[in-house]
Amino acid sequence: MKIPKAIQQLIESFERLPGVGPKSAQRLTFYLLHVPQVELDRFAHSLQNLKNGTIICSNCFSIGETDPCDICTDARRDQSVICVLEQPLDVLALERSRKYIGLYHVLHGKIDPLNNIGPDEIRIGELLQRVREEGERVKEIILATNPTMEGEATAMYLAKQLRGVSTTIKITRIGRGLPTGADLEYADPTTLEQAMMGRSVY
Amino acid sequence: MKIPKAIQQLIESFERLPGVGPKSAQRLTFYLLHVPQVELDRFAHSLQNLKNGTIICSNCFSIGETDPCDICTDARRDQSVICVLEQPLDVLALERSRKYIGLYHVLHGKIDPLNNIGPDEIRIGELLQRVREEGERVKEIILATNPTMEGEATAMYLAKQLRGVSTTIKITRIGRGLPTGADLEYADPTTLEQAMMGRSVY
Repeated sequence: MKIPKAIQQLIESFERLPGVGPKSAQRLTFYLLHVPQVELDRFAHSLQNLKNGTIICSNCFSIGETDPCDICTDARRDQSVICVLEQPLDVLALERSRKYIGLYHVLHGKIDPLNNIGPDEIRIGELLQRVREEGERVKEIILATNPTMEGEATAMYLAKQLRGVSTTIKITRIGRGLPTGADLEYADPTTLEQAMMGRSVY
Repeated sequence: MKIPKAIQQLIESFERLPGVGPKSAQRLTFYLLHVPQVELDRFAHSLQNLKNGTIICSNCFSIGETDPCDICTDARRDQSVICVLEQPLDVLALERSRKYIGLYHVLHGKIDPLNNIGPDEIRIGELLQRVREEGERVKEIILATNPTMEGEATAMYLAKQLRGVSTTIKITRIGRGLPTGADLEYADPTTLEQAMMGRSVY
């Protein structure tokens, strides 16, 4: 049996997405056969307009609708703190918590020698340049790369480089410990160690 | 922070897919930001053409490029056997095994009273009509609905109805037992019972 070309093409498009295997791609495609054409058109339209409707901010490298983005231009935000993140999605996660009112800097990756990604492949130079230009206005840099091996290495490298740019700037790392809803019994030793080290006065 | 509209729309389109939650939808959307525009256009194009490029066969209700489909019109296939399936995807699965050379009939669902799906909501009438019209030419109907509660109920109902249409037709149910690569130790009691009942002479 020949799979209809229209189906085969859509399956292949889905298969290219991360985390979508051949079976899921088939399932999604056959599901869409039952969806009204108007909804398929809307889906197609949002795919085609994804890039036209977005732009990378030339200041913080977050993704927005304008350049500079609405976070960088928001006068109500604290201009003296920059939170350094790996991915644009991390900005969304932090914004959702609604507790951070400073600025961001998105690296678009992490130092990952095994995948041939060195400091020059991500937006580290741009961060150093930004801190240099802002001068006294920036008081603190929060290193919020992921607490993974690569994220830690990136944070360590950044701290060293930032220290070279400014000796007065405060460099911090996001807090480590037990996440909300966690169970001490099932926590791994490293997390427990970090939770002990990072304990706060009650 | 306002999420760019172009991103928000694509996230919503992905969220409507089965098995794709808000987090996956975000992840897929941000992944696509790094994909070349030409690939996004190709994806969009296959979505829009999905329905125009496919048609449901009016004989077997499988999905193909022509009506009747290329399985129904293939003279090399065994016209005396009809395999009854729940979904168009099941046709693909059986075709992949390359061992079945008969025809198909896709029900487009299963009898599922809890979800208000009765015999009239799926292509049972069309199957009975087809068997009636084909007369002596059809020798066997293989009931290959899934071995779930609803699939079994559908098979049972179909067997009764088919018996009413023809008393000479052979009605069979797909074999039950241990799947290839299974481990007896971890098999559930019902499967083991079916495997014992369905044993064959070695």
